Order: sequence, then C-alpha cells, then structure tokens
Amino acid sequence: MQTIQILAYGKLKEKYLRDAAAEYEKRLSRYCTFKCTEFEPIKLSENASEKEIAAALEKEGQQLLKRMKGYVIAMCIEGKLIDSVALSEKIQSVGLSGDSTVTFIIGSSYGLSDGVKRRADLKLSMSPMTFPHQLARVMLYEQIYRSYQIQTGSKYHK
Amino acid sequence: MQTIQILAYGKLKEKYLRDAAAEYEKRLSRYCTFKCTEFEPIKLSENASEKEIAAALEKEGQQLLKRMKGYVIAMCIEGKLIDSVALSEKIQSVGLSGDSTVTFIIGSSYGLSDGVKRRADLKLSMSPMTFPHQLARVMLYEQIYRSYQIQTGSKYHK
Repeated sequence: MQTIQILAYGKLKEKYLRDAAAEYEKRLSRYCTFKCTEFEPIKLSENASEKEIAAALEKEGQQLLKRMKGYVIAMCIEGKLIDSVALSEKIQSVGLSGDSTVTFIIGSSYGLSDGVKRRADLKLSMSPMTFPHQLARVMLYEQIYRSYQIQTGSKYHK
Repeated sequence: MQTIQILAYGKLKEKYLRDAAAEYEKRLSRYCTFKCTEFEPIKLSENASEKEIAAALEKEGQQLLKRMKGYVIAMCIEGKLIDSVALSEKIQSVGLSGDSTVTFIIGSSYGLSDGVKRRADLKLSMSPMTFPHQLARVMLYEQIYRSYQIQTGSKYHK
C-alpha cells in the first residue's frame, strides 16, 4: 500500500475542519497508509523583520527536511497549477516506483524555506487565490481522495 | 450595504460543511447583506443522455436567470483564474456602482447552461482542480470574506 505523508504547520483549530479532515482520513485509509504530522509553527511577533522570518523558515525547513520521504510535493502559491487528473497520474506513477511514498508539505503562514522548495520534486498550487492553511489542508485531502477515485475509475470524479 | 447573493444547486449535506458555511455567513454579516438560495438539482438517472442533461441544465438555467441580480459571477472550471486581490477589487468596484449586488452562481454537478454562461459578467474558476460543489461553496464563502478583509486592510490577508 502506498504511503501518503502530510507534513503540516499548525493544528486544525476549528471543529468543522477537524471533522472534515477526519472524514477524508477515514475514506483514504482504504487506498493508502495516510498519516499527517503537525508541527508547531515558530512564534513570531506581528512586526517580525524579514531576517527573523527567514530564520524561522530556515528552522522549520530543517525540521521538514528530516521528515521528508519519497516524492516530495511542496504546496506553495507560486507552484504549478495542474488539474485533478494530472495529480492523480503523478501519485499513481510514484506508486509504481521504488519508494512509493508521497510527502505533501504545507508550510506555516510565512511559507516555506528555499531549502525545502529546492528539495521538493514538485511545487504545487491548488489556486492562485489565497486560502487559509487549515482549509487548504482539507482541500488537499479531498484532492488526494479524488486521485484514488480517478485511479480506480469510480463515479466520484466524472 | 452591498448585497452578496449566492445561487447554488444542492444542499450542504455534511454537518462540517454546514458549520463552516454558518461561520463564514456570521462573519460576512458585518460587511454585507449575505444570502444564499439553494435550489434542488433536477434528478437524472446515472445513464442520462447528453440531450437529457442539456434539457435539465436549460431548466435549471431558467430558474437561475429569474433570480440573478446585479453583477453576475458564474463559477465554472473553464472560467478565469484570478487571485484573491483581483476578486476583492472586482467586488469593491461593483459595490461603488449603481446596483451594487453581486450574484455568485454554483451550478449542479452537470454545470451551467450556455444561457447562464452568456449572461454572466464574469466566469470564474478557483482552481483547475475539480472540487465537490459543497466544498467549493465553503471555499467561495472564504474568498468573499477575504475580499472584505482585503478591502478593509486587515491582517487576515497578508
């Protein structure tokens, strides 16, 4: 079974988002070993300097680099816009390779370090619009679930 | 106060999505008169022909055309991809015009009729990825809320 690993900064605070995530996790368990690791974002003051932000991102990046495995997809707004079928094909092609793990990364509200972006095999954007990280996580779970539905030819994606 | 009208096919079935929508509706009530009208999608068999689908879309389109007001934004996957700031500017500019109402349309799972698409002032896509209509509704509510946050210069959108 393919492993899908989510590395995410911040917790799902709203109950409705935790419930949504739990629903997709349950559905996904039929298709893959799905696990999400939540990291505590480094706290910065509201007036943090560019340098302080860069240092925090670098530190968060070190944490992420230790945990990444397999094919790494970094979620970032400047990433590639692809459709659900293309994402499904990508996940399927990794599933057929040696290390079939896919790691998705959702950074903190300041984004991701350059090191993480360089290491990523794919920089992916779901939208040119900005969404809250918590909602983006649910959107991503839905897309991963949809990916498997596309692979199995179900009616979910028509 | 600006009126934002949502015309949507289908109900929010999952409790977590209804809770999410309710939360954004509450927040939006500070910035606009926000209302959503849900229509019952016309039921089609799983093997509906192209002709049956077109007829259903046409009928749904007639319902929608009666209810549209002001500036009409039709959500469709082939629509224009714009970022949150551009959407905010669009909503703000309509707010300054004669009929300041904005109507957003989320069609049934078969999409929207050609008549509705022609009448729309803007065809908008949030993503090249396909999302369930129910989740797309919550994503849209968040973008409308974000639009007002951008207009008021809050820290929500940074």
